[in-house]
Amino acid sequence: MQSIIQALTWREATRKFDTEKKLTSEQLYILVEAARLSPSSFGLQPWKLVVVSDPVVRAKLREASWNQPQITEASQLFVFAAQMPTPELVDAFVANISATRGAPVKSLAGLSQMIKGSIESKTEAERIEWAKKQAYLALGVTLASAAVLSIDACPMEGFDADKYDEILGLSERDLHTAVIMTVGFRIAEEAAIELKKVRPAKEDQIIEV
Amino acid sequence: MQSIIQALTWREATRKFDTEKKLTSEQLYILVEAARLSPSSFGLQPWKLVVVSDPVVRAKLREASWNQPQITEASQLFVFAAQMPTPELVDAFVANISATRGAPVKSLAGLSQMIKGSIESKTEAERIEWAKKQAYLALGVTLASAAVLSIDACPMEGFDADKYDEILGLSERDLHTAVIMTVGFRIAEEAAIELKKVRPAKEDQIIEV
Repeated sequence: MQSIIQALTWREATRKFDTEKKLTSEQLYILVEAARLSPSSFGLQPWKLVVVSDPVVRAKLREASWNQPQITEASQLFVFAAQMPTPELVDAFVANISATRGAPVKSLAGLSQMIKGSIESKTEAERIEWAKKQAYLALGVTLASAAVLSIDACPMEGFDADKYDEILGLSERDLHTAVIMTVGFRIAEEAAIELKKVRPAKEDQIIEV
Repeated sequence: MQSIIQALTWREATRKFDTEKKLTSEQLYILVEAARLSPSSFGLQPWKLVVVSDPVVRAKLREASWNQPQITEASQLFVFAAQMPTPELVDAFVANISATRGAPVKSLAGLSQMIKGSIESKTEAERIEWAKKQAYLALGVTLASAAVLSIDACPMEGFDADKYDEILGLSERDLHTAVIMTVGFRIAEEAAIELKKVRPAKEDQIIEV
């Protein structure tokens, strides 16, 4: 039971990746599956994951990320892009429930209306913020999963989201980069440093009622 | 390596909790520790976790949550409350780095300025949204950790955040309920149903570049 704590204590926001060490295709597959299995509000999953391996694209993205080296030096770059929740997205979701669970679409009309009503009650800006929060939730699931798999990762907000959308062709698909993470393996020298993790004291962070 | 996938596949948004089955104090301790170990932007951790066990308080919170039964029937309710990122919060964080790693506060002046500058560049509304995203990230880490520990959980957005802030006395501490989750164990009947998880097809969710 302590192993999850060990994994989360071991993880760090890795800055220096071993450029020679890449994820195996199985590791990459598992990590992408973990992201995909992340829950989201209603299960709507209003985000896409862009897995960037291409070095030319990554060089451009690095320029749009304050030139931070991990963008090109890590094994892969994961870009979580929020998707504007439209009625069409809800329809596709409901059709997917129907297909997956063998329930008639008609029996899901109430659910469809409820989700659409919730989205309509939000402004356009609130809708995309809501989708971004679901992307952060998925980031959390993926980071924890990476830690359990002893895969290093660095979650990052220091990038120009508009430039990312442009470079990756996301804007025309109504996708908006929310947050990114690099994955790979820390270099041996970084592994040796073992900086003590800084967290608020338990009594400062947890309130018991 | 498949075990994380098994755990994330097993997890579900549990609606019906076994009211007789509570988390052991060790399980609760580990889960709270997992939340606490969650990363956040800069490491600032601009959120607090309210662990609600009190049945009287939970009855009030249930009323503020569309009367959803899991609020009172689960073993505990976790409330992730975003904290307004103020200069004082940054100062406390920098003091904590100094104390934890034995670095003089003076040597951290650049970091402090950088974080404060980033916060100042945001409007007040953007600041609290940013803090809420960090809370969603922590929710993701905690949900994945619960799954690994075979603890059931239900992440929820269907509640009145203002009423939560009032009932839990959060407003006066500049804390704002972002998202909640119940933890416990699903009832045997719910366990038997095993509804197939609905997720977009991999080719619809993942873009490879």
